[in-house]
Amino acid sequence: MRPTAIWVYPSSKSYFSPMRLITLLTDFGTRDEYVGVMKGVVAGINPEARIVDISHHIDPQDIVHGAFILAAATPYFPAGTVHVAVVDPGVGSSRRILAVECGDQRFVAPDNGLLERVLAHQPFTAAVQVTHPRYYLERVSCTFHGRDIFAPVAAHLASGLALSELGPAVDRQSMVAGVVPRCRFSSEGSIDGTVVAADRFGNLMTTIDAAAIDRLQRRTGGTPMVVELAGKLIGGLVASYGQVAEGVPLALVGSRGLMEISVNCGNARKVLDARKKDRVRVRVA
Amino acid sequence: MRPTAIWVYPSSKSYFSPMRLITLLTDFGTRDEYVGVMKGVVAGINPEARIVDISHHIDPQDIVHGAFILAAATPYFPAGTVHVAVVDPGVGSSRRILAVECGDQRFVAPDNGLLERVLAHQPFTAAVQVTHPRYYLERVSCTFHGRDIFAPVAAHLASGLALSELGPAVDRQSMVAGVVPRCRFSSEGSIDGTVVAADRFGNLMTTIDAAAIDRLQRRTGGTPMVVELAGKLIGGLVASYGQVAEGVPLALVGSRGLMEISVNCGNARKVLDARKKDRVRVRVA
Amino acid sequence: MRPTAIWVYPSSKSYFSPMRLITLLTDFGTRDEYVGVMKGVVAGINPEARIVDISHHIDPQDIVHGAFILAAATPYFPAGTVHVAVVDPGVGSSRRILAVECGDQRFVAPDNGLLERVLAHQPFTAAVQVTHPRYYLERVSCTFHGRDIFAPVAAHLASGLALSELGPAVDRQSMVAGVVPRCRFSSEGSIDGTVVAADRFGNLMTTIDAAAIDRLQRRTGGTPMVVELAGKLIGGLVASYGQVAEGVPLALVGSRGLMEISVNCGNARKVLDARKKDRVRVRVA
Repeated sequence: MRPTAIWVYPSSKSYFSPMRLITLLTDFGTRDEYVGVMKGVVAGINPEARIVDISHHIDPQDIVHGAFILAAATPYFPAGTVHVAVVDPGVGSSRRILAVECGDQRFVAPDNGLLERVLAHQPFTAAVQVTHPRYYLERVSCTFHGRDIFAPVAAHLASGLALSELGPAVDRQSMVAGVVPRCRFSSEGSIDGTVVAADRFGNLMTTIDAAAIDRLQRRTGGTPMVVELAGKLIGGLVASYGQVAEGVPLALVGSRGLMEISVNCGNARKVLDARKKDRVRVRVA
Repeated sequence: MRPTAIWVYPSSKSYFSPMRLITLLTDFGTRDEYVGVMKGVVAGINPEARIVDISHHIDPQDIVHGAFILAAATPYFPAGTVHVAVVDPGVGSSRRILAVECGDQRFVAPDNGLLERVLAHQPFTAAVQVTHPRYYLERVSCTFHGRDIFAPVAAHLASGLALSELGPAVDRQSMVAGVVPRCRFSSEGSIDGTVVAADRFGNLMTTIDAAAIDRLQRRTGGTPMVVELAGKLIGGLVASYGQVAEGVPLALVGSRGLMEISVNCGNARKVLDARKKDRVRVRVA
Repeated sequence: MRPTAIWVYPSSKSYFSPMRLITLLTDFGTRDEYVGVMKGVVAGINPEARIVDISHHIDPQDIVHGAFILAAATPYFPAGTVHVAVVDPGVGSSRRILAVECGDQRFVAPDNGLLERVLAHQPFTAAVQVTHPRYYLERVSCTFHGRDIFAPVAAHLASGLALSELGPAVDRQSMVAGVVPRCRFSSEGSIDGTVVAADRFGNLMTTIDAAAIDRLQRRTGGTPMVVELAGKLIGGLVASYGQVAEGVPLALVGSRGLMEISVNCGNARKVLDARKKDRVRVRVA
């Protein structure tokens, strides 16, 4: 699923690239100037950087939503890309800021669980705590570290700065963990998960992934499975919307490799009156 | 209305450009990571490509809305630009994907009518069906061809790939047509059209264009004309909002060369209780 | 707060840059093709230009909102950046279009007050009225000068065109002024201001800035101060949201250097039933 790598990636300490790609994922929205200002700060430090927006509409302060969207997006970016993720309810507190190498990509994010899903799916290489103010803007506010710390640090990384220049090494075990829910197998042999968020069409993204469903399939020798949302039966897993009639709920594995619950030509969030954290179960019929 | 062309455009088979411009038009919204992921895929194949968003807020699956916005935008882009348009209710079905040269621009879009207005207004050069998986991502999902096919194909085109490398030639007559409504002259001599969509301010874009209005003017020797929406009289055509009082409905030819129905300092969609496909008529007073 | 300048800025007449950065601030929204079209026009004239969006969600035709967001964003951009600001209720009328050098940045905007806050905070260098149609698109509509004049003029400026090529010099005193409200000291020694706009979270941006509050502090020898909104007591100024309980209103100096009124974990606009232009006062307790 990965496009051909185009970066020369000689060691974990230095990067050279013709591209200098940076991505942004935040809960800032696009009404205010916050995202534009981050891009201005990057341009002032690294005029060759290219910036791609992943999303600025993460639900406000919803680390779990951010963690899922980040992990869904980053495998599609070229090696060496610097991903800046700012969903940061702890801004101004003593929470750490991390710079992490994981898979063949780099991340700058608060140490609050936002990187949990990336770390769970990609091999971890190195992490540091960002502490050296020489890579920040001169004045650091209490409320906008995206502008004052994250953006300038990312611009320096994309210019070739080694991770180790940013601050002391961080042990992976010391990072905040357990914030982002995972699906798990129950004693009765079902897969139990939760609703993460609804997309713009009202489709419900869940914590249940294709790998778990495959495992259940293998265990049960291909017995048909059904999906429940908050205890209510949705039906079997289908391969595409068109397999059910209009207005009918369905479950399928979406393009992120996660199970989604939808209503064909409808809004599942409204029709099913669903909320974040609602329980979702996949079990044999 | 066209800026100076800056591309060298030696033949219909090869392109050289210092810019490698790609545009995106989708109904994906910007809340989810979909658009960012398409840009990551492009960057992995063609790190020099520049990407411009035309809109990601086409009404979901509304091919007609997409076709009008696409045709309104593309004349303002430099020759050789690759326009990727993904309003694709047939994704996962057997609908074809086309790559088309039309005017001095290139398009990658599903064969579902989305290119109808572009083709109606620009000279057609060539079209192929996109079938060669070597230009796709390695794994192709059933639900997200924007990421798996459209984005990588556009990245290769913007790198100089000839259209003919993507698949077999397609006859223009075989393309899906008749999806996008056009205005027409009635036997009584009026111009009949429909409402396409409302913009963010509630202004109603219609299928009636400046050329048709000019023709009616010439036919009737300049007799004053009036505009009706769903059988209700709106009034005469004006040149600017300021020509009517606040709160009063009006019709004018907007910056797209299409007639729009508005309410001065108000929301025409709400005030006039208008819907897509509502009938619109221009007739002599 | 300024990142290191990276432009060579040899005189007020010519610019050379490896970056050619242009920003856009409009009230066009992102549903329609308007912003994408402006970028297409820029690319046709200056294929090397890089474009950053500051915001396209300025409240429709709200010059005051635009002026505050523009002045908050531009100090974070590299010297020589060309900022295009189009909140332009007078489009099609005889209002002037200005190109201005101010601080180490350049601006293209209607002469309607949109630049007032930038001019109040940065040293003014030069201004011209944009009048030379050779830098416009060939046909200029009555309704979309963003596409037909602002975008091509900005593209030429970012290519190195001298300001003086665009039209005759404009005296600063002749520019439209007094549109954007400022806070002021009342005879009773309080600071009086107004609400400018609410952000996506319902936080209220006000016209009262950190400098005024500092001055009041010094005058009163550090006596505690309280904040009122529309005559109702909000409480004292705090340094961060966490200093009050959830659901409680608060006032703080935000990342823009402006006082904001918020509700911790809530929506101040709704909770306090606030509106634009509501009076805000800071006074000794």
